[in-house]
Amino acid sequence: MDPRPIGVFDSGLGGLTALRELHALLPGEDLVYFGDTGRVPYGSRGEAVITRYAREDAAFLLGQGVKAVVCACGTVSSVAGALLAREMDCPFVEVVTPAAKAAARATKNGRVGVIATAATTRSGKFPQALRDMDPGIWVRSLACPLFVPLVENGHIAPGDPLATPAVAHYLRPLREEGVDTLILGCTHYPLLAPLIRDYLGDGVALISSGREAALAARERLREEGLLSPRQEGGDCRYFVTDAAGSFASVAEVFLGEPVGRVTPVDISGLEKLELKKE
Amino acid sequence: MDPRPIGVFDSGLGGLTALRELHALLPGEDLVYFGDTGRVPYGSRGEAVITRYAREDAAFLLGQGVKAVVCACGTVSSVAGALLAREMDCPFVEVVTPAAKAAARATKNGRVGVIATAATTRSGKFPQALRDMDPGIWVRSLACPLFVPLVENGHIAPGDPLATPAVAHYLRPLREEGVDTLILGCTHYPLLAPLIRDYLGDGVALISSGREAALAARERLREEGLLSPRQEGGDCRYFVTDAAGSFASVAEVFLGEPVGRVTPVDISGLEKLELKKE
Repeated sequence: MDPRPIGVFDSGLGGLTALRELHALLPGEDLVYFGDTGRVPYGSRGEAVITRYAREDAAFLLGQGVKAVVCACGTVSSVAGALLAREMDCPFVEVVTPAAKAAARATKNGRVGVIATAATTRSGKFPQALRDMDPGIWVRSLACPLFVPLVENGHIAPGDPLATPAVAHYLRPLREEGVDTLILGCTHYPLLAPLIRDYLGDGVALISSGREAALAARERLREEGLLSPRQEGGDCRYFVTDAAGSFASVAEVFLGEPVGRVTPVDISGLEKLELKKE
Repeated sequence: MDPRPIGVFDSGLGGLTALRELHALLPGEDLVYFGDTGRVPYGSRGEAVITRYAREDAAFLLGQGVKAVVCACGTVSSVAGALLAREMDCPFVEVVTPAAKAAARATKNGRVGVIATAATTRSGKFPQALRDMDPGIWVRSLACPLFVPLVENGHIAPGDPLATPAVAHYLRPLREEGVDTLILGCTHYPLLAPLIRDYLGDGVALISSGREAALAARERLREEGLLSPRQEGGDCRYFVTDAAGSFASVAEVFLGEPVGRVTPVDISGLEKLELKKE
């Protein structure tokens, strides 16, 4: 048993989809959320920049005394997940492996789609994880670079005049190729799930990488005996690198309940953090 | 006469519209372009973060030995333009005043539209500059937060399936209100000019803030006797904070000619720069 909080981080708001699931699964756990809203989006950036940001984000959470870190960001998980897992001294859960496992279980026709940011798609990590589990699975991996800006700007309602054509534009190949399972490989994308379902139809199973990461985190903490002794009343604190106020108002929509304390973090302090001495 | 280069900076690719104009107007000048592609976009961020980035960007250019700095970014000009003008020891040209002057001259019916990022729109700097020039001008100012991600992802061709509905979504009020002049208050937006013209019709004059800033820079350098002694053969060097290779390929499309030397800049070095000791 360990009463310390669990840390969750993402480039922006997307990781809240994982946080919400984690809170529902483990209502007694204290949670610390870090959203790098001052440097979002990550998915359009190069590998070196993403890796640097990822290390700083994880180091910030360790500085908050967390017992485990959930990387609720598809881009960081794909580009720097293996590196963070090696460098960190506490349990580290990323989103790629749990989502790939869930998709391999869910597919009936063996045709799986993956949608994610440009950096995640370039990394090839989701197709690789799926083929490691079942070499017979056919995978189509597509980048949807406008989805994060759409979500971060609140374009998530069914029928939205900007998000609807974007969903059709990006997902047309998946509909034509008859995938029956789709990994939402970026934690922002579950917010577009209603629009994606409208376009692809109910026959396609949508796998939320944030939800699968939350399930994997519960499993890992249980195995290591690190769950909190409390069964309910877990608290959540939020840290963001830009505009705490606007974060709170949008986050409330995503979480479906009022957001607790939101603390602004100075990026210049963040940049001095090091995960490990090199 | 001064043979030193002119510095131009922007959050990403948009400032290339100003650079191109500057090179056409002053072909003998050496130019240094700095694009903060590792932290783009600026326009969705808060004032403190934008100001901090702006200072670092300007300080980087001063470190390259430039004789003047052109801030080819509507967001920085609006949020931190006055501050940079005060803090810098060399001529500093921003985009708001030159564009407002051109619009005040161009309008026949006294109805002017301004489109820009969320931060620029919130600042109210364009409407204020227009009313300072002519209190009789009616101004409608609108934020188009998806335009920068669309441009940075290459969605600029007429008929583009994502950019076309976005243009209609954001500009409908301006068409209904009968503006005859529209300030493109973000230097990314001229790349969407053909789509904007398709939607608003040829009767609306489009004012490119990048082009007006280039004209203002020439004027200022002439007044101060700082123009280069050369009439042609000016060189251009590029510095970016992320993925120099991908910058070069997209920049070539924007500039209409091959891009010269592109040098990657480490953000961690940038963050140590200070414009002035405080």
